[in-house]
Amino acid sequence: MMTTGLEAAAAACSSKVKEEKNEVAALMLGSEGAKAADYANYFSSYAYLYHQKQMLSDGARMRAYRDAVLKNREVFENRVVLDVGAGSGILSIWAARAGARKVYAVEFTSMAEHARELVEANGFGHIVEVKHCAVEELDDISVDVIISEWMGYFLLRESMLDSVIYARDRFLRRGGAIFPNRATLYWAPVASEDRDARLQDKVDAMADFEAFLGEMKEEHGVDVSALEVAYEAEQTHYYLKQAQWAELRDDQVLAEAAVLATFDLYVVTLTESRAIVDAPFDFPTVPLETVDAFAGWFDVDFDFDGRRPLKNPQKLSTAPDQGYTHWGQQLFLLVPPSPPLPSSTAGTLSMTRQRDAVRLYNIDIRLRDVHTVDEPHTLRWELS
Amino acid sequence: MMTTGLEAAAAACSSKVKEEKNEVAALMLGSEGAKAADYANYFSSYAYLYHQKQMLSDGARMRAYRDAVLKNREVFENRVVLDVGAGSGILSIWAARAGARKVYAVEFTSMAEHARELVEANGFGHIVEVKHCAVEELDDISVDVIISEWMGYFLLRESMLDSVIYARDRFLRRGGAIFPNRATLYWAPVASEDRDARLQDKVDAMADFEAFLGEMKEEHGVDVSALEVAYEAEQTHYYLKQAQWAELRDDQVLAEAAVLATFDLYVVTLTESRAIVDAPFDFPTVPLETVDAFAGWFDVDFDFDGRRPLKNPQKLSTAPDQGYTHWGQQLFLLVPPSPPLPSSTAGTLSMTRQRDAVRLYNIDIRLRDVHTVDEPHTLRWELS
Repeated sequence: MMTTGLEAAAAACSSKVKEEKNEVAALMLGSEGAKAADYANYFSSYAYLYHQKQMLSDGARMRAYRDAVLKNREVFENRVVLDVGAGSGILSIWAARAGARKVYAVEFTSMAEHARELVEANGFGHIVEVKHCAVEELDDISVDVIISEWMGYFLLRESMLDSVIYARDRFLRRGGAIFPNRATLYWAPVASEDRDARLQDKVDAMADFEAFLGEMKEEHGVDVSALEVAYEAEQTHYYLKQAQWAELRDDQVLAEAAVLATFDLYVVTLTESRAIVDAPFDFPTVPLETVDAFAGWFDVDFDFDGRRPLKNPQKLSTAPDQGYTHWGQQLFLLVPPSPPLPSSTAGTLSMTRQRDAVRLYNIDIRLRDVHTVDEPHTLRWELS
Repeated sequence: MMTTGLEAAAAACSSKVKEEKNEVAALMLGSEGAKAADYANYFSSYAYLYHQKQMLSDGARMRAYRDAVLKNREVFENRVVLDVGAGSGILSIWAARAGARKVYAVEFTSMAEHARELVEANGFGHIVEVKHCAVEELDDISVDVIISEWMGYFLLRESMLDSVIYARDRFLRRGGAIFPNRATLYWAPVASEDRDARLQDKVDAMADFEAFLGEMKEEHGVDVSALEVAYEAEQTHYYLKQAQWAELRDDQVLAEAAVLATFDLYVVTLTESRAIVDAPFDFPTVPLETVDAFAGWFDVDFDFDGRRPLKNPQKLSTAPDQGYTHWGQQLFLLVPPSPPLPSSTAGTLSMTRQRDAVRLYNIDIRLRDVHTVDEPHTLRWELS
């Protein structure tokens, strides 16, 4: 499907030669087969209407984008708009309703075909032009407004911010608007029953492995105890070292969240979007031994059109006190190690792309004990 | 991982030039990116010890292979053995225990490293040589016995039989043995509550979609009814058009199973392994209106060493009356269509590889009404 998709995209979107298409493919896919698999996996889910419906049923998400567009019509009236990763085309339809002269709805997956149907059914076929391709494949256009719902879990998962930055640098006219224009990533210590449940799951898994060891020896005469260490590592990774989706209650959050990063969409660079390096956090009133996990979430703001504040600013928040969103929060469980963790909840966080799956991330934190000169305690989770 | 795997494999297994390695890769991967994704997905699960443990805990599977080897030692004593897709290396360890002079344990995934550990821990490091590569990448060797556990759901899923045939044609000496030596694929009409449950799931999903339609119109002013037909098709596919894993009771099987195909491993060709074309079935005592689904399963036999019958033949059956195996049965639900199905349960089945995912299959049946000259009624499921 992927190759076919690229070919269809090239036919639909670009008059450029095949060499450039292949360059684009290389840019998107990287040079390794593993990245191709990552890419195919990433896009496959967005090609399902079920997945689109889940996003369209996210009331907080929908209201924020709807009101950002329809209550700030002056930004859209008679303007040219680019919708990056348009999905089923809802944002494009709203932009057209807000008075846009022309909307390019760019969608890589086959959902583009459904976007075309929806645009027609809603009477905007003369305004919205659906482009079934990657935004990186578009021929040169010039737009007044970029709108995009690019946010993944813990904000950066999926790495789609790259495409928005690419579109801004290549297609947005000077002084043009970006919706949303700012994103902020948060981090807080939380209490969570999930930690103990997961620790127990792992204990159960290892008890099951012990029974398996015995059975293999007695029934089949094979000693598989050499696998135990690797099996335990695999179970630990599964239960404890992957970020988990959570819908936290506000009372689980133990301190005001730290801001890990703020991205101003008008100026953020590709380099800045690709990693967070040693972002500090400090929760002085929270002893680390009372913390079960860290949680991460984000918000995005629609409050500046590139030249002036919006008349009706909107905020989309995925914080625990803001009710359900399909993003929820991401939970990073703290597992009691030996030696014990330092008794202070302060440290730094880095978030870097996985080498073989650039849409996924490793989250590394270094916890320091302010009372000693010991080496910081480091922890890693995978956001996949 | 895939590219890295191939490179490591080439380093470990073959002295041949890079061109040939690429030919092998092309053979295995096909020429398209989608196949690369398919391949990566396929192998990833086998690289997990958890997955290996599930297979090693399948008692019927283990007993059949164990007894086939250890109760027919004369086939292995002082012989050279090739284990195709060795996984954690259990079959190779048994072959060594049965007196093999040399065993090549060939495993493409990183499980090969664990196989090495297990072989050493069980004292057969001097007999079993683990090769971390695809069997298609091996340098020329000559072996007396090929052993392999290559069977997927509904026998052919994963298409690993190809690799066994390749190994036979390239490495097995004349008169050598193949374990197992025969595979048989079965098909029967069954009664299953799953059909009504899945039909209801689909009804519920569409009721949910109706509510979604209203909400989108009222809350967001967007008419998404144009998506309904495609949404229903997606739900139908999900609930009703995919083969399902099942553990059937014997009393659910409504007639003696038809044999769709028998594969004699000594003579089967790649062409024969790649598709089943118009295999007939007929259940004259079973009115089609009493049938909820068809079910498919297989067995494999160890009863012939290439020259003479085995002294202690073994059979591994995944039939409903044979107790649990991790393969279970595959269930293909019959959905009431309009016009109604013919009132006889007879027809033909074809099983063909998906173009973009050669390890997956489409299952097509044509049901004919023996009382009329109407066109056969055709049904398709996906085995993925």
